[in-house]
Amino acid sequence: MHEGELPLALTMGDPAGIGPEITAGAWRAIRHGAGHFAVIGDAQAIGQYDVPVREIDTIAQAAGVFADAVPVLPVSLPVPPTPGQPDSRNAGAITASIARAVELARTGQAAAVVTCPISKIVLKNAGFPYPGHTEYLAALCDVSGAEVMMLACPELRVVPVTIHVSLRRALDELDTAGIIAATRTTHAALRRDFGIASPRIAIAGLNPHAGESGSMGTEEQTVIAPALEALRADGMDISGPWPPDTMFTPAARARYDVAMCMYHDQALIPLKTIDMTQGVNITLGLPIIRTSPDHGTAFDIAGRGVADPSSLVAALRMAMQMAEHRNRS
Amino acid sequence: MHEGELPLALTMGDPAGIGPEITAGAWRAIRHGAGHFAVIGDAQAIGQYDVPVREIDTIAQAAGVFADAVPVLPVSLPVPPTPGQPDSRNAGAITASIARAVELARTGQAAAVVTCPISKIVLKNAGFPYPGHTEYLAALCDVSGAEVMMLACPELRVVPVTIHVSLRRALDELDTAGIIAATRTTHAALRRDFGIASPRIAIAGLNPHAGESGSMGTEEQTVIAPALEALRADGMDISGPWPPDTMFTPAARARYDVAMCMYHDQALIPLKTIDMTQGVNITLGLPIIRTSPDHGTAFDIAGRGVADPSSLVAALRMAMQMAEHRNRS
Repeated sequence: MHEGELPLALTMGDPAGIGPEITAGAWRAIRHGAGHFAVIGDAQAIGQYDVPVREIDTIAQAAGVFADAVPVLPVSLPVPPTPGQPDSRNAGAITASIARAVELARTGQAAAVVTCPISKIVLKNAGFPYPGHTEYLAALCDVSGAEVMMLACPELRVVPVTIHVSLRRALDELDTAGIIAATRTTHAALRRDFGIASPRIAIAGLNPHAGESGSMGTEEQTVIAPALEALRADGMDISGPWPPDTMFTPAARARYDVAMCMYHDQALIPLKTIDMTQGVNITLGLPIIRTSPDHGTAFDIAGRGVADPSSLVAALRMAMQMAEHRNRS
Repeated sequence: MHEGELPLALTMGDPAGIGPEITAGAWRAIRHGAGHFAVIGDAQAIGQYDVPVREIDTIAQAAGVFADAVPVLPVSLPVPPTPGQPDSRNAGAITASIARAVELARTGQAAAVVTCPISKIVLKNAGFPYPGHTEYLAALCDVSGAEVMMLACPELRVVPVTIHVSLRRALDELDTAGIIAATRTTHAALRRDFGIASPRIAIAGLNPHAGESGSMGTEEQTVIAPALEALRADGMDISGPWPPDTMFTPAARARYDVAMCMYHDQALIPLKTIDMTQGVNITLGLPIIRTSPDHGTAFDIAGRGVADPSSLVAALRMAMQMAEHRNRS
């Protein structure tokens, strides 16, 4: 039933985390619907969650398999995974799964890459030189520095302009050029991959009440306003800088397609306050489409049969929709 | 029907804002329910919103009036208010209304003070030396510096430890002693005024992922952890420091009675993301009970008959509940 349709390439993530379990759950949730995926990983790890699994030789075979079993392009693990007990000896296989998925997407064999959670510490202990998934993907795609993180749930899309640094460093790093670059990448992605012809972009202030005319901080005037000006000169539909606390109310968030945020938690707090289970992490600025669930490896609950596949299902569906929009554009 | 019950003292706020209109709306909403209030303000400003108004001489008369009309303890305005056009010549009357309300509560004639929104700029232009309501109330009560701001809606209570300063200054001002003091005040208020015998207090981290073991900021270890230790030594039920983005999910916020937040927007973003209309601002650390709606004067919509009294109604009801708990304790 999936002939003629490109599969998604789903990485295994850390096999000691909840990745295998939510992969099994996601396959159950979407096996009879539109779209399909192939896992780049370990068949046995997934099979233990009571789903049929079939190893395939090429990703094109996934289409014929998907209705009956989870199609797996095998990556062999040096150490059999134990749920909840990550092992750095499997780090090479974990990163190989990611590299293979990227290659499949870049060569037009996969519609998109969807990644299961990895543990930064496990990879770091094995000498992995990237702070996380996103930076590794950018490097694999030869666009390091161009990557932009978007988080989305049905009610809200947010893009943090500064990401995984301390709040103090985020204040130091925040600059006009960074806001402009992230917003341009976001604008292009909303048009190309989300089918929004004229995206309405809301830019957050940094300080309480957006500084209240400079009485509680001046970055709105010195750093953010010049970015707004440049982006408006590009012809974009830009508003802001908005007081951060009132721009995420139900009424306010209905008035824009994305909120550009000045730091990590300004973006992630409202998103996760609304909805933890439907959140999807999307990397913009890559030549390929990439989404992932908005949670970690959850080693503490791995193997106990209680992991919720909702966010992975949302990530898979989001990737399918994005691929469809990109095909049409 | 309100004999024997203490009234709330409701200040007029800026009479050119939405205060008179939401006061009329709030009276309509609660006139037949439990509790009652007297406005300290201008009868004419309220009467224009199609509600009966009656001037009274002492606040004790409010009980006999409330079912039939809005009881008003008159404060005369030098300039008749025009909705949407604030006038600094009325600043003295606006602050006199607040001072009178505090006096009524301190002398046991009012159960609590509920304040309508004021404009900082209007008052500042008239020489008012306080940054806002809260600081003025603390000064009137002779407890300057002890005031703590809490925001509450049915799903969440938050207390920002640093408040109306730039984000950069909040980072500079955040210290262990401040976290301890605000948490102690909050703990005492939850027991006395909210009827929570053993409050569960969640303390937020400052940095993304609460610093992730120091790799993205160290304040969790150097500033916040020592506060947790001191508060636990007091015998409080304290948890944290929590990653700020995951502590406000629906599942997480069910596990605590209050979130102590490190800066203004960390507290106010989740609250307003959930619910803008039911939010209530509560000042803890005063000898009196004080609540207010969680919005401003809204000069832009004043006089147009579209203002939503929900937040003021919530503030009035919260003050009644707090007074009831305090009476019982």
